[in-house]
Amino acid sequence: MTTLYDVAAIGNAIVDVIAPASDDFLAEEGLVKGSMALIDDERARSLYGRMAAAIEASGGSAGNTVAGVASLGGRAVHIGKLGRDQLGEVFAHDMDAIGARFAGGLMEDATPTGRCLISVTPDGQRTMSTCLGAAAQLSPADVDPMVIEAAKIVYLEGYLFDPEPARRAFAKAAGLARGAERLIAITLSDAFVVERHRAALLGFIDGEVDILFANEAEITSLFETDDFDAAVRAARGRAKIAAITRSAHGSVVVAGDAIHQIEAASVEKVVDTTGAGDQYAAGFLFGLAKGRSLDYCGRLGSLAAAEVISHLGARPERSLTL
Amino acid sequence: MTTLYDVAAIGNAIVDVIAPASDDFLAEEGLVKGSMALIDDERARSLYGRMAAAIEASGGSAGNTVAGVASLGGRAVHIGKLGRDQLGEVFAHDMDAIGARFAGGLMEDATPTGRCLISVTPDGQRTMSTCLGAAAQLSPADVDPMVIEAAKIVYLEGYLFDPEPARRAFAKAAGLARGAERLIAITLSDAFVVERHRAALLGFIDGEVDILFANEAEITSLFETDDFDAAVRAARGRAKIAAITRSAHGSVVVAGDAIHQIEAASVEKVVDTTGAGDQYAAGFLFGLAKGRSLDYCGRLGSLAAAEVISHLGARPERSLTL
Repeated sequence: MTTLYDVAAIGNAIVDVIAPASDDFLAEEGLVKGSMALIDDERARSLYGRMAAAIEASGGSAGNTVAGVASLGGRAVHIGKLGRDQLGEVFAHDMDAIGARFAGGLMEDATPTGRCLISVTPDGQRTMSTCLGAAAQLSPADVDPMVIEAAKIVYLEGYLFDPEPARRAFAKAAGLARGAERLIAITLSDAFVVERHRAALLGFIDGEVDILFANEAEITSLFETDDFDAAVRAARGRAKIAAITRSAHGSVVVAGDAIHQIEAASVEKVVDTTGAGDQYAAGFLFGLAKGRSLDYCGRLGSLAAAEVISHLGARPERSLTL
Repeated sequence: MTTLYDVAAIGNAIVDVIAPASDDFLAEEGLVKGSMALIDDERARSLYGRMAAAIEASGGSAGNTVAGVASLGGRAVHIGKLGRDQLGEVFAHDMDAIGARFAGGLMEDATPTGRCLISVTPDGQRTMSTCLGAAAQLSPADVDPMVIEAAKIVYLEGYLFDPEPARRAFAKAAGLARGAERLIAITLSDAFVVERHRAALLGFIDGEVDILFANEAEITSLFETDDFDAAVRAARGRAKIAAITRSAHGSVVVAGDAIHQIEAASVEKVVDTTGAGDQYAAGFLFGLAKGRSLDYCGRLGSLAAAEVISHLGARPERSLTL
């Protein structure tokens, strides 16, 4: 079967709501700086009510990766779940507009599109409070076999290990991809996700995953060690390829007996580190889909990450003046 | 009666949808660079469908002025009409968040909140296609007498001279303001608005208006002359105060026999001229509400305009890092 897509990414379809905030605001709201916390709709309304004037922009980890793949000239598609509302239209529109496509599901009821309330403090850090809404309702029915089978790589956002129906959607996608001899990639997304689902994640990785993305905190949490090198050794053999990012220290790509040390690409000034991991994955997956070497994939990931941290925002910049 | 507000502004409640665009895109879509065109919902959907990935942010001319008054420490309120949808929530939230308040009406039916599709070309110019939606449904019932009577100045956005019920809302607000001995200000908004409603506008100005805001194109259109000085002379006596802006040439404030020439405030680099007139009005009205001289009001208007044109966006910047 011909492949129509380089990457089909399954993740939370989220619109970011971005506003400045003070450290005092974080303290008053009990927000832990730099963290991502899940909140319910009631809490989202009350928190939003106290946030400053905001801008809205499409986001979501896998969504950002899809945008990255598209910005590199790749063909990418996003599978998630949207509400039948204006923010859902915004998410789908922005996917189309970047040359990608939203191929997930729409809510039948009034559950709203997921929102990530992002408080940006004067030090440039982003503190995220995510109200998943429709995103958490992703289920196997939203995964179109035609789309998965037409993608060289299916990429799964670890955040979706939390809701049970989404995990079943992962299993369905993995089975379809396996059957069509496609590659399966997953990102661990968050050390707390790993804490909550360590056994299930390890089982899924052993059974299904070709390419594992993780950062230092996630991979050490996965293997319950404080020793990064021990975690890297443990990753060997669990997935065909493990790409482990270390911020300014670059990344380590492990494949069988080979270990590739990839340097971080240089950045004149780090403005906003949000989305670095998402863009690393985008560069890496794009390279892989194009049949490039693992060294090349890692370096392309580093370049994509370097671009996104040199400006505000989690998607590759298309300047407002093109 | 005590005044709770410095300014109550009546205008189109609009959320901006801002995306980069090429000159070719404008040509293909038949858009006139730098202009504001009204479009219907069908056209808005089709145009939006071809626009690049966008960000959403609260806007609207009077909304921007309210934001400006609030940023100067003034108490301001916006009266407009919103849809019962997410963009409506965004507009109302942002009003609250800047320390102002939305005191207008909400649609009973499913008419969506107004959107302004803004195409930003590489030269920094903004081409606007406005789908008024709920905003055009503003009617006298949405004007709360308590709010008008509690405001030192009621400020009317000329754009609302187009829909008939909104014009009646203006008349209601003007009557209430007059009865409570408040000041009535209007901005002409757009030379095409003046073309369409010249006689009605002149009648309204003669009958009701204390402070008239206009730019060069609008005031010369109003008095059907190519001669700016002739237009200024004609403005004298039509409103108690006429504040006429001339971009880089500053502004002219006419009051009775007095003519005040106000210089533009210096700007290191003009980034985006959108909202200059809205912020001039904000500074001027804030000064007036505080009982300052017309010279002072004009200079405060110039300063507010200079701030807003030195960055992207039509509202005073609150940096994302505060």
